[in-house]
Amino acid sequence: MKRTTIMGAACAVMAMALHADALGTDALPSWNDGAAKRSIVAFVEKVTKPGSAEFVPETQRVAVFDNDGTLWAEQPMYVQLAFALDRVKSLAPKHPEWKEKEPFASLLKGDVKAALAGGDKAVLEIVMATHAGMTTDEFDQTVKEWLRAARHPRFDRPYDSLVYQPMLEVLAHLRQNGFKTYIVSGGGVEFMRVFAEEVYGVPPEQVIGSSGKTKLRMQGGAPVLVKQPEILLIDDGPGKPEGINLFIGRRPVMAFGNSDGDLQMLQWTTAGEGPRFGLIVHHTDAKREWAYDRESHTGRLDKALDDAGSEGWTVVDMARDWKIVFPATR
Amino acid sequence: MKRTTIMGAACAVMAMALHADALGTDALPSWNDGAAKRSIVAFVEKVTKPGSAEFVPETQRVAVFDNDGTLWAEQPMYVQLAFALDRVKSLAPKHPEWKEKEPFASLLKGDVKAALAGGDKAVLEIVMATHAGMTTDEFDQTVKEWLRAARHPRFDRPYDSLVYQPMLEVLAHLRQNGFKTYIVSGGGVEFMRVFAEEVYGVPPEQVIGSSGKTKLRMQGGAPVLVKQPEILLIDDGPGKPEGINLFIGRRPVMAFGNSDGDLQMLQWTTAGEGPRFGLIVHHTDAKREWAYDRESHTGRLDKALDDAGSEGWTVVDMARDWKIVFPATR
Repeated sequence: MKRTTIMGAACAVMAMALHADALGTDALPSWNDGAAKRSIVAFVEKVTKPGSAEFVPETQRVAVFDNDGTLWAEQPMYVQLAFALDRVKSLAPKHPEWKEKEPFASLLKGDVKAALAGGDKAVLEIVMATHAGMTTDEFDQTVKEWLRAARHPRFDRPYDSLVYQPMLEVLAHLRQNGFKTYIVSGGGVEFMRVFAEEVYGVPPEQVIGSSGKTKLRMQGGAPVLVKQPEILLIDDGPGKPEGINLFIGRRPVMAFGNSDGDLQMLQWTTAGEGPRFGLIVHHTDAKREWAYDRESHTGRLDKALDDAGSEGWTVVDMARDWKIVFPATR
Repeated sequence: MKRTTIMGAACAVMAMALHADALGTDALPSWNDGAAKRSIVAFVEKVTKPGSAEFVPETQRVAVFDNDGTLWAEQPMYVQLAFALDRVKSLAPKHPEWKEKEPFASLLKGDVKAALAGGDKAVLEIVMATHAGMTTDEFDQTVKEWLRAARHPRFDRPYDSLVYQPMLEVLAHLRQNGFKTYIVSGGGVEFMRVFAEEVYGVPPEQVIGSSGKTKLRMQGGAPVLVKQPEILLIDDGPGKPEGINLFIGRRPVMAFGNSDGDLQMLQWTTAGEGPRFGLIVHHTDAKREWAYDRESHTGRLDKALDDAGSEGWTVVDMARDWKIVFPATR
């Protein structure tokens, strides 16, 4: 035990030396030098500097990231919705009742807009109905195969390659500085877990999302978990702090979002005592990605944008702050 | 980046050397040398040995522990129930209706047995009713104060000192070998999180338990989470694998329990591919702790004990396998 402690201390000292060395390099090379980048770098520096008045012990370094529109593209529709639409088509022969039942009827007619008119709740219903009835392992497999085959309609690239390179750098920079990085998303937890580890370096146990119920069943003598068409948690809006409390059990130090669905997560995170950090990705780049905020159906950013100034949250201007948006290849 | 990698590798090598050195020492000094102890040590050795056919990568090293009866004493009643009883007494003046309403009426008359006749569901109802209506921060504070003041009726010691020293050693041994140790308990998640980090070294985000709903409210201009008298999850029996899937998103490699409430967690864990380990703490020590199994109301162990042999689970005979039960002081 004692020698382990000494070794741990030695490694910690060497890590500190390395950290000092690393200060000369650029942890966020895809960010233009501006207020947004500087606010991230400065915050991490002050909370990790031993002896600093604003030092945060490593066990408390929790950073939460929304996924859709914050870590990857959410236009023209949520990726998981694109997956669900394809699933509706594949499953339709087994569900003749969908021809008469909204939002499925509209979807099957190709009228996505009408189907989405029911709002986030309708979206989650579609998701639950098309995701349920299989085991968790079968679901994983289905998502994996879909991600391999599907292409984004505008960029003709795999959906999981349309992640924001500058945000990947933020994730890595935080982890190098002892932060645990979490995804806290309105998207389905099991959907995100399929790619979050490979794409973001975020392991399954650090992904929090909207969740359906599962039920344990015996199948060929072995227990399996079968996904049920029943919503357990909607991890959006006020559901985000509620979900963080349920899963993590402590208030994060940093929160990153892009829409009003992240407002309460940003409020709750930055209302804590001691140093706190909030950031909003503002989609201002119609050329390289999309420009949208107050009027958008997907990822509406209105109240959170109004509050950012008085709350002291960093607002990223995607067009101005990011050198590149997506990685060249993945 | 490069230097960090090199340093990381250097630390890993030194850690390995230390590990080799540590093999000569005893990681589980409170365990008598017997089949139970040897099964734990041998399993950890084989899954952590690089190049071994049964090697498990560090990211997949997840071990789950039941709490009541597995990590600390659960007799004569669950600790959280003792807390809830004291809460019923403190809150009774504000709830005149409890005088007429079971299980509260029996509790207030001091008839714990009658109140408990309703089973685990009744217990959880008491817990939810006495835990709700306050903010999560207020609840933390209430539990902390109660743990400081309350004494176990038989041992006249703080409840959180009645933890099993041999199991603390297992937790530490697993963590030293790259395992993430989780608590997966029928007990309330927020109750356990108050002491789990200090007592077991398990951080809040690695505690999974039965959960009530919370609701975000503004209080004096700041967002707070208020506990609701509504059950969200019962993390017992089949609820344990369901909870593990929800919170962790991967199947554990090792599972530790002591009752039929842990049966499905043990089954689900050990039904996975590759090396798996299941262990049951059998309470056989009336002198130092308690002796109970098939007939016990709290922590009944019946079916899981029948299945242990054919499933290949280790059964700990507390009287024979443990040199000491509780730490001398804490």
